[in-house]
Amino acid sequence: MEKLYEGKAKILYPTEDPDVLLTIFKDDATAFNAQKKGQIQGKGAINCAISAALFRWLETLGIPTHYLDCPQNDQMLVKAVDIIPLEVVVRNIAAGSLCKQTGLKEGLVLGNPLVEFYLKDDALGDPLLTWERALLLGVTDEAGLQTLKDLALNINQHLQRFFAQCDITLVDFKLEFGGDRQGRIILADEISPDTCRLWDNTQTDPQARVLDKDRFRRDLGEIESAYQTVEKRVLSQIERLQSQIGAS
Amino acid sequence: MEKLYEGKAKILYPTEDPDVLLTIFKDDATAFNAQKKGQIQGKGAINCAISAALFRWLETLGIPTHYLDCPQNDQMLVKAVDIIPLEVVVRNIAAGSLCKQTGLKEGLVLGNPLVEFYLKDDALGDPLLTWERALLLGVTDEAGLQTLKDLALNINQHLQRFFAQCDITLVDFKLEFGGDRQGRIILADEISPDTCRLWDNTQTDPQARVLDKDRFRRDLGEIESAYQTVEKRVLSQIERLQSQIGAS
Repeated sequence: MEKLYEGKAKILYPTEDPDVLLTIFKDDATAFNAQKKGQIQGKGAINCAISAALFRWLETLGIPTHYLDCPQNDQMLVKAVDIIPLEVVVRNIAAGSLCKQTGLKEGLVLGNPLVEFYLKDDALGDPLLTWERALLLGVTDEAGLQTLKDLALNINQHLQRFFAQCDITLVDFKLEFGGDRQGRIILADEISPDTCRLWDNTQTDPQARVLDKDRFRRDLGEIESAYQTVEKRVLSQIERLQSQIGAS
Repeated sequence: MEKLYEGKAKILYPTEDPDVLLTIFKDDATAFNAQKKGQIQGKGAINCAISAALFRWLETLGIPTHYLDCPQNDQMLVKAVDIIPLEVVVRNIAAGSLCKQTGLKEGLVLGNPLVEFYLKDDALGDPLLTWERALLLGVTDEAGLQTLKDLALNINQHLQRFFAQCDITLVDFKLEFGGDRQGRIILADEISPDTCRLWDNTQTDPQARVLDKDRFRRDLGEIESAYQTVEKRVLSQIERLQSQIGAS
């Protein structure tokens, strides 16, 4: 099979159906716009499993996603979409680049979730976009931006509640969206410890609580076990929800 | 006299009147967050004269400014204000950091003027703020931001027309505002080739047309004469406006 596209964490292949693509989740880890590179053993399969579980669950809540099926541990069949070149970031607690850029203290709980748009452009270092800059670049129009913001806030509400039930605080996360053949905007990419900041509520130490790619970025060690913890808790919570539905 | 504050281009002194401060305009030039330093001979007096002329003229158009008087060539008496720690940038044509950050081509004429807020914080490198980040930092509230945006757009309309009559294109410029004792938001700082991008309409060469601090930033030479050209044209246009008023 010839690759359609290789990103930092995933490879996309075409399938016999032009409306369907195959995603392979890689163990490769990158940070700081790929200046730091490494491997996280088993990450591909873990992120694929977490993303699949969350996508399936979000679909039941009325959020359209690109998810179709998982033929293998680290493989996901997805709907072919035209990716909108924006990283849509939702922040519930100040961390990462928000703190570095503005001087806000890490851990500050934001009164309202903050939705931010970043241009998906490695050469430019994925710059933060104001609303006006996003429109100026013609990535999408006013209505498109508003749809992305509304979808992101809606997904945040669901995910915050879901992770709370896993004893995990959803600090912030990055989403990507695409337009499908019918012109609908649907959730694409992945939802995983690569793309979310997740803090373990059972830990109080600011380093011990980190369950996401910050362990790799900041050389905190025990990266694999953190990813495994997230996978275990997410899949257990999905099972609990399934049994609740069965019982009701 | 003991300095109240020394910035990169100006020094502030108290006066006997607590509502009045004395500003000395320096010949010192800095760029790239003060990583590049130099001197532009006569800049202090030129920027003081241009700013004074534009402030006086803007006042006649109903824009409140901090300007009071010029006791010396390079000295301006101003109203004491609490500076709002935002750089309010208005862009009519894409240039500078907008192009560097987004990949937009320098010289692109923007359909509508773009108003941007940057945090006045040298240690953080004066970061671009989204509307939401400005509110989050508590620099001002929603109504305050809207007032700054409206004032900036109003000033831009006046300045664009004024500079056009000087055969100069106003590409972009930075404003600072302060709150006076009555709680009014008034225009402060300066308006000069240090704080505006100005292109000479009588030149077509992209380097020859530059009449502002970009000559210093980009080592284009003939910095002093560019500043002198702006001063000459601005003061002549002010004289023309005065004689028109006298004749009408």
